[in-house]
Amino acid sequence: MSVQKPSIPQGTRDFGPVQVARRNYIFGIIRRVFEKFGFAPLETPTMENLSVLTGKYGDEGDQLLFKILNSGDFLNGKKGPVTAEDLAAGSKATLPKVAEKGLRYDLTVPFARYVVMNRGQLTLPFKRYQIQPVWRADRPQRGRYREFVQCDADVVGTNSLLCEAEIVLMIDEVLTSLGLTDFSIKINHRGVLSGIYQALGGVGRESDLFVAIDKLDKIGQDGVTKELLERGFPQAAIDKVFAYLQVGGSFAEKLETLRSMFGADGTLQDAAAGPAKGLQDLAEVQQYLQDFGFEHFERLDFDVTLARGLSYYTGCIFEVKVNNVQMGSISGGGRYDNLTGSFGLPGLSGVGFSFGVDRIYDVLETLELFPADAVSAPLCLLANFDAEGRPALLPLLRGLREAGLSAELYPEVSKLRKQFEYADKRGIRYMLLAGSEERAQGVVKLRDMRAGSEQTVPAAEVVATLQGLA
Amino acid sequence: MSVQKPSIPQGTRDFGPVQVARRNYIFGIIRRVFEKFGFAPLETPTMENLSVLTGKYGDEGDQLLFKILNSGDFLNGKKGPVTAEDLAAGSKATLPKVAEKGLRYDLTVPFARYVVMNRGQLTLPFKRYQIQPVWRADRPQRGRYREFVQCDADVVGTNSLLCEAEIVLMIDEVLTSLGLTDFSIKINHRGVLSGIYQALGGVGRESDLFVAIDKLDKIGQDGVTKELLERGFPQAAIDKVFAYLQVGGSFAEKLETLRSMFGADGTLQDAAAGPAKGLQDLAEVQQYLQDFGFEHFERLDFDVTLARGLSYYTGCIFEVKVNNVQMGSISGGGRYDNLTGSFGLPGLSGVGFSFGVDRIYDVLETLELFPADAVSAPLCLLANFDAEGRPALLPLLRGLREAGLSAELYPEVSKLRKQFEYADKRGIRYMLLAGSEERAQGVVKLRDMRAGSEQTVPAAEVVATLQGLA
Repeated sequence: MSVQKPSIPQGTRDFGPVQVARRNYIFGIIRRVFEKFGFAPLETPTMENLSVLTGKYGDEGDQLLFKILNSGDFLNGKKGPVTAEDLAAGSKATLPKVAEKGLRYDLTVPFARYVVMNRGQLTLPFKRYQIQPVWRADRPQRGRYREFVQCDADVVGTNSLLCEAEIVLMIDEVLTSLGLTDFSIKINHRGVLSGIYQALGGVGRESDLFVAIDKLDKIGQDGVTKELLERGFPQAAIDKVFAYLQVGGSFAEKLETLRSMFGADGTLQDAAAGPAKGLQDLAEVQQYLQDFGFEHFERLDFDVTLARGLSYYTGCIFEVKVNNVQMGSISGGGRYDNLTGSFGLPGLSGVGFSFGVDRIYDVLETLELFPADAVSAPLCLLANFDAEGRPALLPLLRGLREAGLSAELYPEVSKLRKQFEYADKRGIRYMLLAGSEERAQGVVKLRDMRAGSEQTVPAAEVVATLQGLA
Repeated sequence: MSVQKPSIPQGTRDFGPVQVARRNYIFGIIRRVFEKFGFAPLETPTMENLSVLTGKYGDEGDQLLFKILNSGDFLNGKKGPVTAEDLAAGSKATLPKVAEKGLRYDLTVPFARYVVMNRGQLTLPFKRYQIQPVWRADRPQRGRYREFVQCDADVVGTNSLLCEAEIVLMIDEVLTSLGLTDFSIKINHRGVLSGIYQALGGVGRESDLFVAIDKLDKIGQDGVTKELLERGFPQAAIDKVFAYLQVGGSFAEKLETLRSMFGADGTLQDAAAGPAKGLQDLAEVQQYLQDFGFEHFERLDFDVTLARGLSYYTGCIFEVKVNNVQMGSISGGGRYDNLTGSFGLPGLSGVGFSFGVDRIYDVLETLELFPADAVSAPLCLLANFDAEGRPALLPLLRGLREAGLSAELYPEVSKLRKQFEYADKRGIRYMLLAGSEERAQGVVKLRDMRAGSEQTVPAAEVVATLQGLA
C-alpha cells in the first residue's frame, strides 16, 4: 500500500465529540417536540433509484444529484455497453447506462415515494418526521455543505388548519427550548400573493412579481421597483404592489386592511379561492393559536412579502428568521396540494416544515447558547497510580457506572501530570485520586478540574457524592 | 413528469415508525454504555475519497465499494476525457476518470483517516465510538443489506489490557440491558493461534491452518481434517492441532493446560511474543475482570478455535454469539497493531469492537424482547367532536404537551368510529373523549384502548392522570 496524505471530500465534515454532542442536543430537542405533537419517525435509504429522484427538483436539481456508479463492470451494464457514440453524445446521454441510483437530495421526495409504496397500509392523516442527511453537489461555500441534515415534519391527508397552527407552536417550542427568544415566525399565504397579482389586472407575469417581492429584504424598495419596471410592470401597478406590501399593524389589523383593499380591488368574488381563502385560512390559524393560549404572538409575523416555494406551496407559507444574528432562514415550510402526483397518486395534500440544523448550530454558537452539559466527556477520571490500587479502584469504577455515571480509569500507570493533562483536554470534570495513602485511610480525593478545588471523601461515599455533583 | 411506480434499490430498506423506535432503543442502549465507559462520539462523512478507501479491504472489498460518479460532465473530468481506448481497457481502468469518491464501507478506515488528519490535536489514548451506516455492493440476501448500521468503539494509543477487559464488560452490559441472557463472549488471542501453528514445526501454511480452524463450528472435525489434508498438512500435525483445539475446562484451566502443552512443544521461548504473550494477556484480562467483580464468567468462553480477522488482529480476538437463536455473530473485534500505517502514521495500536445492529434486531424480535414502550406512538388522542369543543380542548392538549406527554387532537371533526380506528392503527394507548355533555360537567372520558376500559376524570385532573398512566 502506498503512503498518502488523507483528506475528505470538499464540502463534507468530520464531527468530533463536542460537535456530535451539540448536534445531538439540537436533534434531541427537535425530536422530542415532533413526538410530543404526535409525529412518528420515518427513515428512508440513503440511495434512491434515479427514476424516483430525477425530474423532481428541476434541471438544476438534476445536476446537483450525486449519482452512484453501477456496481461491477459499469461500462457494460444492463442497458448495454457504453459506446463511442455515447461518448460523443456526452455525459447526460451516457448517464442512464452507467448509473441507476443517486443519493437522497431532500426528505420530501423519499417521503412521497414511501407514501405511494405503502398507501395500502398507511392510516391517514399520516404524520411523519424524518431527521436524516441529504446530499447536494452544490459548490461548497461558507455555511453550505454537500452533506447536511434536514429535520422535516409533515402531515398528509388532511386540510385542517390545526396543522398550520401546530407548526407555529412546534417552531416556537423548539427555538424557545434551544434558548432563542428574538426570532420571527413569518407566515403568508399563496392566496394573498395571488390576490396582489390579481389586483394588478393582468399585467406582467405572476412569477416575475413574486420573485421580485421575495427580494425586498435584500434589495429594498428601489431595487424591487427597478426589477419590476425592467420586467414590464407599469409604475401604477408597482405603486399598487407596494401599497399591499406596506400594510402594517397587528396580525388581525393586517387581515382587516387587506380584506378592504382586496374588496376594493374586486378580487374577493371567489370566496373559496385566491385572497378570500388566504385571509380566511390565516384568520383560522390565528384563532387556533388563540385557543391554544399561544403567548408569543409578537413572534408571529404576517409578512405579505414572504414568497417562497411558489412552485409547490398552495396555502400557508412559513419562514423563520433569527433577528439578532446575521443568518438566512433557519426553518421554513408550507402547505402543498399534490405531494405524490408524479408517482401516480394525485390529490394527496399536506403541510410540512423543516429545520436547518447547520444554521441553528451556528446561531447557538454565535449567541453562546449551548449548555455546558451538551458535551460527551466522561464525568470522572480515576487516576492510575500503581497496579496495587487496581483491586480497590475497579469495583469503585464499576459502582460509578452502575449508578449511570460515565467514568474511566486511565488505562496505564503513568505520570500524574500526563493523566491530569488527559482529563483536562478531554473536558473531564472530576478526577478521582486514590494513592496508597488514601487507600490506607479508606478515602479518595475528588478534584474538581473546573473549580480547581479538592475534597476528601470516604471511598464508600464516592458514588453518592458524584451523583450529587453530576 | 411521467407517472411511474416507485421502488427502492435492492438491498435497502425503509424503516417505519415501529422499526425506527426499536432501532433507536438498541442504539440508545449501546450509546449509553459506550459513553459510561468514557468513549466519545465521532461522525465522519458518508462520502470518502476513493484514494482513502481503495486498497484497504482487499480486491473483493474494492469491488464492493459504491462509487460516486463525478459531478457535472463526468466524461470530461479533471483527468481528461474518457476515450475509446478507455472503453477498450474496461471499467477498472476507466474508473479513476469518472469517479473520485465512494460511500463509507466500514467505520475503521474513516476512523484511521480521522486520527491521521487530526493527530496534532488528539489526546492519546483516544477513545471513540461511532454509530453510522455503511454501504456494500454485496449481493443482497436474507439478513444481508447494502446499507446497514455499524456501532464501533475503539481505543487507540494504549496497550493496556484494561481495554480488553472493558470490552467484555461493555458487551455483557449492552446485551444484558437488551434482555439477553444466553450468549457467549468468545475470546482468543493471535499469539495462541500462532503457538498452535509453531507447534507443528513449520508444516503447511499458517493462513490455511487458521481458515480451516475457523470453520470447525460449521463443518466439524471431519471437515476440517479433510481440508487440512488437502492443503498438505500431515495427519500427525492435524492430530496435534485437535489436541490443542479440544482443550477444555474453565478459563483458568485452559490457560494452565495450554501453557503445559506449549511448554512441551517448545514454543514458549520468547516470553514477549507468540503463545507466551497470548496466555499472559488472556490471564491479565481475566484478572482485570475478577477485580471488576465481573459475575458472568460463564459467558466468557476462551475459544481456541476462534480465528477471525487474522490479517489485522495481533492480540486478543472477540466474537459474540447468541446461543438460543440461529444467528451469526452479533459482535466482534480485537486488538490491532497498525491502524494508520497506510496513511503514513505507523505504530499506532489499539483495540476495538463492533455491534451488528441488524442481527441484534432480529434476535430481539425472535425472542420477543422488545419492550412494549419501544414505540413512538403518541400517548393520547383527543377526539374531535365539534368545533365548539375547541376552546376547551386546545388548552388541555397544550397542558399535556407541557407536561412532556405526547398527544394530538384528531385534526378534523369526523365520525368517532374513524377516529377510534386511527388511534387503534397508530397504536395510541388512550383516547380522550370530551363531547358537549362531558364539557358541561367539566369532565372528560379517558378510554384505555388496550384494556378496553373507560374512566371519567375531572378535566382539571387529566394531565396528572395521564402522567400517572404514562
